[in-house]
Amino acid sequence: MTQHTPEKTPGKSETSLEAGVSRRRLLGTASAAGVAGLALGGAGGAYAHAATREEPPAALTTLGSGSVPFHGVHQAGITTPAQAHGHLVAFDLAPGAGRKEAAALLRRWSDAARRMMAGEPVQGGQGGGADSGIALDAGPSSLTVTFGFGRTFFGRTGLKGGLPRELAPLPEFSADALDKKRSNGDLWIQVGADDALVAFHALRALQRAAGKAAKLRWQMNGFNRSPGATSHPMTVRNLMGQVDGTNNPKPSEKDFFKKVFVPEDGSPEWMAGGSYVVLRRIRMLLDDWDERSLDEQEEVIGRRKSDGAPLSGGKEHTEPDLEKRAKGKLAIAANAHIRVAAPETNGDAAMLRRPFSFHDGFRDDGAPDAGLLFLAWQADPLRGFVPVQRKLDRGDALSPFLRHEASALFAVPGGPREGEYVGQRLLEG
Amino acid sequence: MTQHTPEKTPGKSETSLEAGVSRRRLLGTASAAGVAGLALGGAGGAYAHAATREEPPAALTTLGSGSVPFHGVHQAGITTPAQAHGHLVAFDLAPGAGRKEAAALLRRWSDAARRMMAGEPVQGGQGGGADSGIALDAGPSSLTVTFGFGRTFFGRTGLKGGLPRELAPLPEFSADALDKKRSNGDLWIQVGADDALVAFHALRALQRAAGKAAKLRWQMNGFNRSPGATSHPMTVRNLMGQVDGTNNPKPSEKDFFKKVFVPEDGSPEWMAGGSYVVLRRIRMLLDDWDERSLDEQEEVIGRRKSDGAPLSGGKEHTEPDLEKRAKGKLAIAANAHIRVAAPETNGDAAMLRRPFSFHDGFRDDGAPDAGLLFLAWQADPLRGFVPVQRKLDRGDALSPFLRHEASALFAVPGGPREGEYVGQRLLEG
Repeated sequence: MTQHTPEKTPGKSETSLEAGVSRRRLLGTASAAGVAGLALGGAGGAYAHAATREEPPAALTTLGSGSVPFHGVHQAGITTPAQAHGHLVAFDLAPGAGRKEAAALLRRWSDAARRMMAGEPVQGGQGGGADSGIALDAGPSSLTVTFGFGRTFFGRTGLKGGLPRELAPLPEFSADALDKKRSNGDLWIQVGADDALVAFHALRALQRAAGKAAKLRWQMNGFNRSPGATSHPMTVRNLMGQVDGTNNPKPSEKDFFKKVFVPEDGSPEWMAGGSYVVLRRIRMLLDDWDERSLDEQEEVIGRRKSDGAPLSGGKEHTEPDLEKRAKGKLAIAANAHIRVAAPETNGDAAMLRRPFSFHDGFRDDGAPDAGLLFLAWQADPLRGFVPVQRKLDRGDALSPFLRHEASALFAVPGGPREGEYVGQRLLEG
Repeated sequence: MTQHTPEKTPGKSETSLEAGVSRRRLLGTASAAGVAGLALGGAGGAYAHAATREEPPAALTTLGSGSVPFHGVHQAGITTPAQAHGHLVAFDLAPGAGRKEAAALLRRWSDAARRMMAGEPVQGGQGGGADSGIALDAGPSSLTVTFGFGRTFFGRTGLKGGLPRELAPLPEFSADALDKKRSNGDLWIQVGADDALVAFHALRALQRAAGKAAKLRWQMNGFNRSPGATSHPMTVRNLMGQVDGTNNPKPSEKDFFKKVFVPEDGSPEWMAGGSYVVLRRIRMLLDDWDERSLDEQEEVIGRRKSDGAPLSGGKEHTEPDLEKRAKGKLAIAANAHIRVAAPETNGDAAMLRRPFSFHDGFRDDGAPDAGLLFLAWQADPLRGFVPVQRKLDRGDALSPFLRHEASALFAVPGGPREGEYVGQRLLEG
């Protein structure tokens, strides 16, 4: 258990010399805060809110220095622990742009992603230009950039031979109310980072690097818990307050990689080590939800809100007992979300959910425009998202509180080897 | 320098017993990551992106455990170091609601703010209801809630006698393009926290506590660097990549409190210890800005981008030499932002700027809807924001890259004493 190779590249400030410098700087800062505190104390202790937060040195170097490698069998941002900030953005190739322009674009994007994930500045636009400087001073903050291809990409680039059958359009679901303008797209990028400015810097740099080759189609912003906000780092809560993702497949489990990734000898060849991601913008009807009692909410989900334990008993990670009855009825109701979504009721369908919450303010009707940017990763959507969503669409007690407002499916190729750009095996194959 | 009283209340997980529990939990987590890493290594080290981040225990308890006191001479959220997440929200009193309903509302809001800033759950709606649970597991994460009153509040509550002269409407500026629906309001709340879910939890709880007494008028979301993302914690960058806030008055300086807060014997009496906040939603024309060379950008601002040093030389905190000439011209241009905004060119006008950046996606014209939620705190707007903005409006080289899209001015009363609610001295005076 202690033999694993640390996968995190130490950030700049973790090298011994740099760390020393950083810590001295931090101590300098702490002293400055001390001066402020003293001045306040001198005013009779009355000004109780000035200089209220002290950051121990350790906290000031950890979050920023986390970095995730760009190269590998898989792209980053899939099994990487979900970051505090996420941007999802889709582009369409510009009219007239084809395979050649797309290849040049993916080469530029990959180069920018590699540099930024290492905490380095990037040239700004297609024709150069200075780095915007937004991420200056910060470490890579676990930045990941993940690239995907939509079904329409293959027609526009004359690469129809490379189109995977897994990119067949998702079926329509009865509860869908999809905005086509915020759905699908030729190209997709997921940006994640634990610092908002680092994430924004990457998004802007990638948008500028698109130049005239591709045009923004839609963009969404999301968030998760900040590292360190809770001492239960494996527990993720959504905006309904519910523990989310308990039943996710875990990398330590048998078949995890088979469920999530296309195998090395899979088809098409250029997708070896890749994955298919389903994105759904799921707005939550929080005003309705919050009016329900805690008992009602827990019955809808099938888990206790406090700790995520199944209503059949135990703790968060106890296997739900779907047959258990109490007081003459099922402990986990027939239409409870966790029953309807469970792999065992869906032919063992499995996907790795790695969502961000979103909150885009309030709608004209006064309701919060907030919910989940649901992202599900799988080797085959027909053995993951599709059968589960078909079932949820028909009989999930949670459905009345949700609105699926946008949908997309992308093929996310394997990670680039040294010197390679993402998608090279497709574009130059 | 080491004698100041720590103003931060230790969070739950900082007590010795709890800290021990947390650390054991964290070590358990690290081991789980270790298992994943081992499994990956067993697959030939091929799966380089799984379980890539390890969080040392220190980082996992620090951010969440920070807490800021609710009671005090001033409200929290003014001199508190700016948090990573902010929500700004304005309400209008409902038709028919007057002084009595407003007093009951401020009592409910204050009670909820006090509890949440201590990391405790709150009753949900006006009639009770469970806490939404969104902040469960997390520490207070330096949550602050700050309340203010707009000019229109005084007419609607029959409290015109309490209206401060400082709440006179701001003058119009030639470059304003204000959206009235996103400006002003009877009541204002600023929520800040270092965790996005803690901040959202507070916003929702306060909105639910409004009940039928007040209706949401507008709402904005903002962000800053995450604690720990940089080893320069005093340096804030905006979305132009520029160091921002260098010349802010500091609590250690003479007259800091006089500049920012209404004195104890000030007028009106209910505003003792209070402050006036000017809010401007300033969209940045980032596509235009990013096209300029680094030299041009630095000339517009008057500071070096890399470290914020004035172009007259030195380091970030070196006093700019506004007279210095080099190669026959002023080192800091006549229309450079820092010259036009400097207190010494504005009759010593001073304000404490404590902004959040914002990014609401992209506009219909393809430009980013992003910029600065400018928040300026001062004892008197006519000696702070107004003279500076008048000057900037006429001759700031930065103005062509900015759009002021919303504006508001609120009277933020002093902090509540034990047992008091915010604004009680006005509402029951």
